[in-house]
Amino acid sequence: MPLVQARLDVLAAALGGELHGDGSRIVEAIAPLERAGPREISFLAQPRLLPQLQRSEAACVVVRPEHLEQARERGAAIVTDDPYLYFARLTQWWAARTRSPAAPGIHASAIVEPGARVHPEASVGAQAYIGAGARLARGAVVSAQAYVGEGAEIGEQTRLAPRVVFERGCRIGARGLVQAGAVIGGDGFGFAPSQGQWVKIEQLGAVAIGDEVEIGANTCIDRGALEDTVIEDGVKLDNLIQIGHNCRIGAHTAMAGCTGVAGSTRIGRHCTAGGSAMILGHLEIADHVHISAATVVSRSIRKPGHYSGFFPIDENAAWEKNAATLRQLHALRERIRALEKKS
Amino acid sequence: MPLVQARLDVLAAALGGELHGDGSRIVEAIAPLERAGPREISFLAQPRLLPQLQRSEAACVVVRPEHLEQARERGAAIVTDDPYLYFARLTQWWAARTRSPAAPGIHASAIVEPGARVHPEASVGAQAYIGAGARLARGAVVSAQAYVGEGAEIGEQTRLAPRVVFERGCRIGARGLVQAGAVIGGDGFGFAPSQGQWVKIEQLGAVAIGDEVEIGANTCIDRGALEDTVIEDGVKLDNLIQIGHNCRIGAHTAMAGCTGVAGSTRIGRHCTAGGSAMILGHLEIADHVHISAATVVSRSIRKPGHYSGFFPIDENAAWEKNAATLRQLHALRERIRALEKKS
Amino acid sequence: MPLVQARLDVLAAALGGELHGDGSRIVEAIAPLERAGPREISFLAQPRLLPQLQRSEAACVVVRPEHLEQARERGAAIVTDDPYLYFARLTQWWAARTRSPAAPGIHASAIVEPGARVHPEASVGAQAYIGAGARLARGAVVSAQAYVGEGAEIGEQTRLAPRVVFERGCRIGARGLVQAGAVIGGDGFGFAPSQGQWVKIEQLGAVAIGDEVEIGANTCIDRGALEDTVIEDGVKLDNLIQIGHNCRIGAHTAMAGCTGVAGSTRIGRHCTAGGSAMILGHLEIADHVHISAATVVSRSIRKPGHYSGFFPIDENAAWEKNAATLRQLHALRERIRALEKKS
Repeated sequence: MPLVQARLDVLAAALGGELHGDGSRIVEAIAPLERAGPREISFLAQPRLLPQLQRSEAACVVVRPEHLEQARERGAAIVTDDPYLYFARLTQWWAARTRSPAAPGIHASAIVEPGARVHPEASVGAQAYIGAGARLARGAVVSAQAYVGEGAEIGEQTRLAPRVVFERGCRIGARGLVQAGAVIGGDGFGFAPSQGQWVKIEQLGAVAIGDEVEIGANTCIDRGALEDTVIEDGVKLDNLIQIGHNCRIGAHTAMAGCTGVAGSTRIGRHCTAGGSAMILGHLEIADHVHISAATVVSRSIRKPGHYSGFFPIDENAAWEKNAATLRQLHALRERIRALEKKS
Repeated sequence: MPLVQARLDVLAAALGGELHGDGSRIVEAIAPLERAGPREISFLAQPRLLPQLQRSEAACVVVRPEHLEQARERGAAIVTDDPYLYFARLTQWWAARTRSPAAPGIHASAIVEPGARVHPEASVGAQAYIGAGARLARGAVVSAQAYVGEGAEIGEQTRLAPRVVFERGCRIGARGLVQAGAVIGGDGFGFAPSQGQWVKIEQLGAVAIGDEVEIGANTCIDRGALEDTVIEDGVKLDNLIQIGHNCRIGAHTAMAGCTGVAGSTRIGRHCTAGGSAMILGHLEIADHVHISAATVVSRSIRKPGHYSGFFPIDENAAWEKNAATLRQLHALRERIRALEKKS
Repeated sequence: MPLVQARLDVLAAALGGELHGDGSRIVEAIAPLERAGPREISFLAQPRLLPQLQRSEAACVVVRPEHLEQARERGAAIVTDDPYLYFARLTQWWAARTRSPAAPGIHASAIVEPGARVHPEASVGAQAYIGAGARLARGAVVSAQAYVGEGAEIGEQTRLAPRVVFERGCRIGARGLVQAGAVIGGDGFGFAPSQGQWVKIEQLGAVAIGDEVEIGANTCIDRGALEDTVIEDGVKLDNLIQIGHNCRIGAHTAMAGCTGVAGSTRIGRHCTAGGSAMILGHLEIADHVHISAATVVSRSIRKPGHYSGFFPIDENAAWEKNAATLRQLHALRERIRALEKKS
């Protein structure tokens, strides 16, 4: 990774915030408060880390106004209302200077089928495949070995990482990112039972993805049966997530890794799901619903709030006893009732 | 997607059923009852949707005999004993007319190693790889960027979607479909412990898959340690499923996404598993066993039936209280006993 | 698969152990005790399988000293202190003789960017991609269609299976194995909330993997936000596992399929996790901690031991009753208390 040397005043000029201290001071990396050295910049996002601030050797710390004094006692500081957001912008500034941007144009080893429309400022990487009639907008990046199916559309500045499969007729908007190995537009899981066997329901819909959507590595979003599976603007999906056919995921909803959403479920806007949550099919989840990790959503949720449901971890011997008793829980309740009647 | 215009009498002639109404009426798509328009065909599979039937603007609705009258009040109808099965056949009819079939032959950019036998009517897509001694039968389709290992066999009319990995020595029968990103024949997870370290057990078996099997996107089926992992005819596996080494999945069993089956478990015929179910290793599951979503199967199941086990979702505060109490459940039972003795 | 014919005395000479019986006897395969035939070798690792020993037709059985006599009653035997470890070595001996080793050199269809350093004894398969400045050590194997990003490093004798994605700047040590479809170095899942939207935190770290590590098919290990995600020596990860950014997995820890580890969690050495376990973020797990399958680790674990937590499976009707009662469990406890006060 190329070495970046940034003057504090240059950073403040680019990202805002109120710089206190020597603006000519140079930093070469971003580091967590406790490990930052004299050539690194750090940030204080959580008050509980305040003790680390005094000890921190960071050249500069990004802090809220109320922490300026403590920050200055030990060096330079940048004051902002939201240090964590400032940190995010810092990482973006750094990434822009340490990564080689994708070269526009089509790599000689890529296959672009007739009728595909690739914008001259789009990039098609080595060994990538672009199907007939597919459309890549300005600044779209299809990385090495990625696959874009017939008639699929990739929006402006959207990047498909290596080895993404983005199938026939699916669409993604602008400024999106699809991580390696994700499969967008595989067949939904639909079969009609007939005499003990399963008859395939061909999936005639596609996947329609909005702007500013990020999709994690090896995550799968199935195409709809008759209409499209829809991922609205600003949705963020982690790795190894399964989104079934005909689902709609509301804008700015975020889901952690290994979560599953079964078919035809509609999830509202600004929701979150912890890792390994499982949301069953044909449900409606309201806006601003937060699901804990490993929780099974087995009914629609109409009310915003925080919902949970997983078995608490315990030492194995204790768990075995409690789990065994749990299988008699309903009977225990009856026994309590009987005792209550008597007493 | 090309426009399809289908006369109702043509559909009925092709798919059967008893057409009532104007056979010259043209439909251009299949749609759900509530959203179908005057140039679309729909179906009524669930009696609970009967109210939607009266309101439906569909040109034609596929119904059971008992719903013919209501269907006719609003337009044409096709009568059949199983409208959902008829719907499945309709989607197949539509897919056959809206998708470009894979061209037979080997794409110039594909690599076919010496000794591979590719049937002249098989199709090998762009940038695909076919290993030495592999065999592709008549009508087999290996899509763009897919990988077929040394000595692997792909049966008649079976299609591997883009970027499938079908490894060395594995076999799949006829009329199968493997979705994008699936990995068939990775090493099973086998190690012998030795002085605090793990010594690799090389996996000398393969994966043997029957006819009419569908395997979902990014699903993994591991090769056996000494013998083959076996997937019998008609099995349907959704996305992101893990099948461990030495498993046998019985014919016509279906599993929803994110399910895991640990090594050496044998699952019967005509079973189903809901999403995120986890079936532990070295178990025997009888035929016609149905496992609910997110249920952990920790013991063999000898009796057909419906089995479940997941923590019910609740508002977080309520869950926290109940989960905390759950850790004392066995003690609570003792206290109930004590009370019973006294009373 | 080529036929292997091995004399028993040759195997014993190569793998050790004390051979009893005719060393000129030839075996052609390894088989489980109950199915082994007269031209196969087997082993007895679990005393509970002792009854199978007498009946076994295996040409030779690998046994512990105490089982020599019974083994000899029915044929040849090899005595060793750890038959299961001996079995592992047998599979390695067999694999070495039945698999074609990767040819050193770079396949004509592979893309190797300028500045990549590929050792002359390394192997780059068909349609593989090696980024600028990447380094492949002696004996490293990058299989067909695999991707190695800019500046990534693959250690001696480490093999990437077909279609692995090993991204920019990530490193793996010697004698490792990454199964097909795994994604090493995708972006960690990090966003700063801002006015109801998510602002990307660019992930500036990478993934650093030690020696003798095995990573399963379609498993994902995310790159760190500021520092590296670390997988220590000897770790074994099964398929479809998610390792979040900034995690550290201690040496010789093994995890079964579909397990998730959220970001910034540190797991100790010599731990195990059963399939579908979910370990939440920012936790510390001590050495020698064993987590049962499908268990949610929601707090740090400081003490070695065996921990569990999943809902016991039951017939659906019984589960429904118990699950419903579980939602009143805390109230039930209060009622027991009330009864205790009275009595």
